[in-house]
Amino acid sequence: MKQHLSIVKIGGNVIENQAELDKLLTAFSNLQGAKILVHGGGKLATQLADKLGIESQMINGRRITDAQSLDVITMVYGGLTNKNIVAKLQNLGSNSIGLSGADGDAIRAHKRPVKEIDYGFVGDVECVNTSTINALLNVQMVPVFCAMTHDGNGQLLNTNADTIASELAIGMSSEYETTLYYCFEKKGVLMDITNEKSVVKHINPEIYKELLDNKIIADGMLPKLENCFHAINKNVAKVCIGDITMIDPNAVLYTTITK
Amino acid sequence: MKQHLSIVKIGGNVIENQAELDKLLTAFSNLQGAKILVHGGGKLATQLADKLGIESQMINGRRITDAQSLDVITMVYGGLTNKNIVAKLQNLGSNSIGLSGADGDAIRAHKRPVKEIDYGFVGDVECVNTSTINALLNVQMVPVFCAMTHDGNGQLLNTNADTIASELAIGMSSEYETTLYYCFEKKGVLMDITNEKSVVKHINPEIYKELLDNKIIADGMLPKLENCFHAINKNVAKVCIGDITMIDPNAVLYTTITK
Repeated sequence: MKQHLSIVKIGGNVIENQAELDKLLTAFSNLQGAKILVHGGGKLATQLADKLGIESQMINGRRITDAQSLDVITMVYGGLTNKNIVAKLQNLGSNSIGLSGADGDAIRAHKRPVKEIDYGFVGDVECVNTSTINALLNVQMVPVFCAMTHDGNGQLLNTNADTIASELAIGMSSEYETTLYYCFEKKGVLMDITNEKSVVKHINPEIYKELLDNKIIADGMLPKLENCFHAINKNVAKVCIGDITMIDPNAVLYTTITK
Repeated sequence: MKQHLSIVKIGGNVIENQAELDKLLTAFSNLQGAKILVHGGGKLATQLADKLGIESQMINGRRITDAQSLDVITMVYGGLTNKNIVAKLQNLGSNSIGLSGADGDAIRAHKRPVKEIDYGFVGDVECVNTSTINALLNVQMVPVFCAMTHDGNGQLLNTNADTIASELAIGMSSEYETTLYYCFEKKGVLMDITNEKSVVKHINPEIYKELLDNKIIADGMLPKLENCFHAINKNVAKVCIGDITMIDPNAVLYTTITK
């Protein structure tokens, strides 16, 4: 039987709120078994860019990453956010180790080809180095990934944290029974957007089709769920969507996505 | 027989000069056997602090590290400098992994007690976690340390890179025959400060006393050599001082310090 692995992705809304972050990290440190944390950087990068007079250009919620923006991201995601999370997790008893995709050659990517939009130094993931990650997990370390990859030719690249989480989950699923948790600001996929308690507890491809047909899932939830089913279709055992309380073993209110 | 370990410390003058850094990293990647790189951050942190309107206060060459300065250091040392060095080393074929002392609980320190001067968030090293470092070296990874530690209670701390290098060398010497290389801007300890070729090739405690008596060693070289002898007296096999060409196996012009 495969060993279990939890991969938890937290977004900017958690990172920017110290109390929420502390709660999440406490719950994460209480998670039993092998685990990986993936974080974005949220508004902190934009705030630093603003202070430095560097313009943050976003298209469809994605940052156009010129050389200066990449430096900002490297400082905020790879430095400030990552190292502070690692120090906090150490205090909570998790032997965490902060990583970008360049560290241990963990996640290799290529610069996104220029089509209509030139995203700059943005990386599309090519492969996950399971042997690096296994070497760390095997000695009970807890990898904490920031949203950065590299191309193997010395170039760091900015990569969406949701994508990093799903690619890690897909890569590691060859050896682990993997659960991927996407933490965001809501309790899960909601039947009624105005009712936080109307969580759809379980979605499989059949239910997904129904939800789509009935326009329950729309807008921002669409790419999120596509990402989830991409992971599920590539052998990730389970994907969960919910708020930070979801990773507590006693949590009941969140959405689970399975085949 | 103990396995050999090379620990190479590079300072700000190398990091700030892209061509010098590339040369050093190429030589470092060609070094055979287990190896560790330690880097400071140099003027980049001060430059970023200036841009952000944060005053950099230095006393005896040491940075007074308030909370804002610590964030700057975490961004520059832990993020920008560390991740770019890691990406470059990956390109050169070294499977490097960037670390602060918090990562893998590798280097634990305590906040320096306030005496005449309050250095702020500056850490004095307590212990090196050889099992974390060994776990990485055992799978042929190359740790790249920035000049940061943590206190185990969630607090990152700024720690002098020379000290990190010597403490790592001392800690690892229980299991490895360790050579510690201090790269700086000169070819080594000079008999005549105006003559770059007047390198004292070998210093032991006896020769050191002579050099001190004859005032050959003074000013900035004093703490550097005290650091070297501290390492030598705590079982580090060999300490070398010189410029970046020193770590080339064919190098001849640098200073070696032994017991």
